[in-house]
Amino acid sequence: MRFLPRDEKFYDLFEAGVKKVVEGAVQLEEMIRNFTEVPLKARQIKEIEHEGDVITHRTIELLNLTFVTPLDREDIHDLITSLDDVLDYTEACAERLSLFKIDKTTDEAELLVGILVRSVKELEEAVFKLRRLKGADSVIKNCLEIDRLENEGDSVCRAAVAKLFEPENNPLEVIKWKEIYETLENAIDRCEDVANVLEGIVLKNA
Amino acid sequence: MRFLPRDEKFYDLFEAGVKKVVEGAVQLEEMIRNFTEVPLKARQIKEIEHEGDVITHRTIELLNLTFVTPLDREDIHDLITSLDDVLDYTEACAERLSLFKIDKTTDEAELLVGILVRSVKELEEAVFKLRRLKGADSVIKNCLEIDRLENEGDSVCRAAVAKLFEPENNPLEVIKWKEIYETLENAIDRCEDVANVLEGIVLKNA
Amino acid sequence: MRFLPRDEKFYDLFEAGVKKVVEGAVQLEEMIRNFTEVPLKARQIKEIEHEGDVITHRTIELLNLTFVTPLDREDIHDLITSLDDVLDYTEACAERLSLFKIDKTTDEAELLVGILVRSVKELEEAVFKLRRLKGADSVIKNCLEIDRLENEGDSVCRAAVAKLFEPENNPLEVIKWKEIYETLENAIDRCEDVANVLEGIVLKNA
Repeated sequence: MRFLPRDEKFYDLFEAGVKKVVEGAVQLEEMIRNFTEVPLKARQIKEIEHEGDVITHRTIELLNLTFVTPLDREDIHDLITSLDDVLDYTEACAERLSLFKIDKTTDEAELLVGILVRSVKELEEAVFKLRRLKGADSVIKNCLEIDRLENEGDSVCRAAVAKLFEPENNPLEVIKWKEIYETLENAIDRCEDVANVLEGIVLKNA
Repeated sequence: MRFLPRDEKFYDLFEAGVKKVVEGAVQLEEMIRNFTEVPLKARQIKEIEHEGDVITHRTIELLNLTFVTPLDREDIHDLITSLDDVLDYTEACAERLSLFKIDKTTDEAELLVGILVRSVKELEEAVFKLRRLKGADSVIKNCLEIDRLENEGDSVCRAAVAKLFEPENNPLEVIKWKEIYETLENAIDRCEDVANVLEGIVLKNA
Repeated sequence: MRFLPRDEKFYDLFEAGVKKVVEGAVQLEEMIRNFTEVPLKARQIKEIEHEGDVITHRTIELLNLTFVTPLDREDIHDLITSLDDVLDYTEACAERLSLFKIDKTTDEAELLVGILVRSVKELEEAVFKLRRLKGADSVIKNCLEIDRLENEGDSVCRAAVAKLFEPENNPLEVIKWKEIYETLENAIDRCEDVANVLEGIVLKNA
């Protein structure tokens, strides 16, 4: 049952989806490290996010038209929509950096986007193991590393927000940066949601 | 199967639900265009939202008591709760306009509520086509228009928030308006969620 | 079917989960009423939240490994994750009180945490009635009281936020307290989500 052509199509879509997620995060990292031509770079990330949306949409269409699916319907749906959420927050961060007319980025933003890139690369590895569903242990290892990175992101974001509240800071800048940090943290958190879906899939299909 | 009295009851509830959503958005538009007696108008919208809650609650009760449903159980649940979310954000916006002691509204708020009203009217048209499940194409057309309106809302909201961060603005006012704009944008976004559910329903039942 | 050892294990986990939720809320109330050693107390609540995560994780593992479950799979999942959400917001509030270097708490924070404690105690009562699934009426009574408390919390939170916007207030303090109040309100709201799941369970199994 597992190797029907239609099944392969699902795995193709998962792989295409996670690649877009990685592409978005890598571009955001480049943007934050090299903070020039921000509006142009934000539009490019918006374009990647749009391409991700198309993949999500196609997966849901295929799901609605397929009677016997290679994984539980709910898991397929949750996998593709949680991947989409990671990319949405990645794009939202790029957009805010452009929209809020930020002059220069901060060390904390660089740290956070680095954690995001490491997380999505773990996701990419894990998703590419799904097609043959071998190596459950190895998928779980990726998921544990994503959990660890989420905790790291959490503690970096906390410290970053605490620093914002120094009394001499300009309140408008505080509002802007608090939102940017939280958007980055949300992107990292959503990676953990994807990891939870992946964990469920490999446990059920082990 | 499709025309049992119990089935008709589900469609009655969907139609009653979407009518409350339209009523809420239209009242919010009136409130924003004619910004007088704000606390009274906010209470009236709260009342509409409460009536919507009752419809949602009744639908979930009916779902829990019905063995064979006219649409997938999950779709019925998602349809009625996503409609409810639109109305919740509509009411949350009205409440904030009252609670934050806003003196006068802005052009951007007027633009955004106009987009919300157009979106919910598309939703109303689409929901009223469900009962006989004919005209899948025509439901899809409503959904595409809702997607377009969501993008329009997104770009109006972006520009509105960017404008808030002019350095001469009072930070307390920035906090208030940022939240009001985002609440309006959330209401419009939730319309797209309803549209996604509707799209899934008509594709599966075409 | 209902009294297999594995079924008992699910109820053990629900009960352990709700107890952690109560423990977290009671500790947060103590922290807010007696606002000393805040970082230490925040770390203790973080520890409770972590213990709650372990219970959630075990429940999902058991769910993935169990073929015939004592309640609908989806309900078990929703029950344990919505309980987890209450504890997450409880912990998030404690963390912010510590992180934002708050000097002293407010009457409104005390009122809100009191409402949270009353809500989670209703939840505890209701969850402990599940094992034998008798007394549907009595579970519904707990749920109605939770709904009432949610409305009370909503109106206290509204008034608290309105008070923040007095023009003489320091914008940085406004940002901090708005987030703390909203986090408390979110914790109370999540109790209502748990109540909705419980209501669905007892109606279906009555």
